[in-house]
Amino acid sequence: MTRVRTDLFVSLDGYTSTTDNTPSNPMGVDWGRLTKAHTGTRTFRERVFGDTSGAGTTGVDDTYVASFFEGAGAEIMGAGMFGLHAFPDDPDWKGWWGDRPPFGTPVYVLTHTAPRPPITMEGGTTFHFRTGPIEDVLAEATEAAGGLDVRVGGGVGTARDFLRAGLVDQLHLTVAPIVLGRGTRLWDDLSGLDRTHTVTTEVAESGTIHVTFTR
Amino acid sequence: MTRVRTDLFVSLDGYTSTTDNTPSNPMGVDWGRLTKAHTGTRTFRERVFGDTSGAGTTGVDDTYVASFFEGAGAEIMGAGMFGLHAFPDDPDWKGWWGDRPPFGTPVYVLTHTAPRPPITMEGGTTFHFRTGPIEDVLAEATEAAGGLDVRVGGGVGTARDFLRAGLVDQLHLTVAPIVLGRGTRLWDDLSGLDRTHTVTTEVAESGTIHVTFTR
Repeated sequence: MTRVRTDLFVSLDGYTSTTDNTPSNPMGVDWGRLTKAHTGTRTFRERVFGDTSGAGTTGVDDTYVASFFEGAGAEIMGAGMFGLHAFPDDPDWKGWWGDRPPFGTPVYVLTHTAPRPPITMEGGTTFHFRTGPIEDVLAEATEAAGGLDVRVGGGVGTARDFLRAGLVDQLHLTVAPIVLGRGTRLWDDLSGLDRTHTVTTEVAESGTIHVTFTR
Repeated sequence: MTRVRTDLFVSLDGYTSTTDNTPSNPMGVDWGRLTKAHTGTRTFRERVFGDTSGAGTTGVDDTYVASFFEGAGAEIMGAGMFGLHAFPDDPDWKGWWGDRPPFGTPVYVLTHTAPRPPITMEGGTTFHFRTGPIEDVLAEATEAAGGLDVRVGGGVGTARDFLRAGLVDQLHLTVAPIVLGRGTRLWDDLSGLDRTHTVTTEVAESGTIHVTFTR
């Protein structure tokens, strides 16, 4: 059965994503600290950077990263995550991930601007652009996933839209043991999530806390 | 050497203490959920309730509770935690803890109202009331602790005053795996704490996350 799942990064003080983004540094300077344990894993290095040297951490963090990449049959993301806000006027923009994005599935990009034709990339990724309600896009992605999971990839605003609408079956938080003091707040309007979902917690060798809400 | 340490409860979404307090329920209805893993331990039941039956959880949570009760030579708390806000007009008020409070040390109560004479309780606890700056009260408490630790017991406002002033050597957070959605926010103005202190994380059998900042 298809599950809808999302993975987010958050600091101890509840900041996810960052607010100091610029076109030349689209993720902001805090982003590296927030995602350090995740991007330092062997699986991430292999899947995203194509680094097959075996470098990178193994252990609990790597297990979660491997799970992240497994079992997804479709992806949904916001326009900002794809880069439409940073490059609104470039009809040839194909996302941040190079010619061979790490998704390997249909990717549905939510946008309010003029529809674009789909973009077929190497490795099984096709970007589709959709302007409809999230429920409709989710129905299409679920159909495309063919029984595998639908991943709501981000950004935070998109993930929060799905969470608030009660559409997410599994929320996995990678909690970095840092106090950012600035950024986008994760938790507003999510009270009660621990009543509809079961919460599990685990600490990795890096000190990173993994919190998973499942229903 | 005397260390200044404080222990706080916090939800996943950063709420510590609660804001739904009333005179008849001074800790609020959320407080029980926030402190459940702590108050359910064998050590807490024995030290606070005098329950010597051996009931209560053991394991990681209990180890932290035992550490909480060990090594403190003096305590500092705010007027609200002692109960001066709930019972401002009762000169005979002696706190929430009965005739034999679990501190067993001098306790310095910070207050802005008229000074009260000290109250000597059973079991080594004496309540002293102080109106001076927190640095002065800390100096007096450090002297009284005789080389043992000074514990800043709470409430959250008092603990945050000491944290913001850079006076806390060890902050231990008991993070309940719940999303409260309301209460007093812990994290505001504490960014950078992970740069002055080392952060360690551990998960208990209860799913509770223990986060410790030490310098």
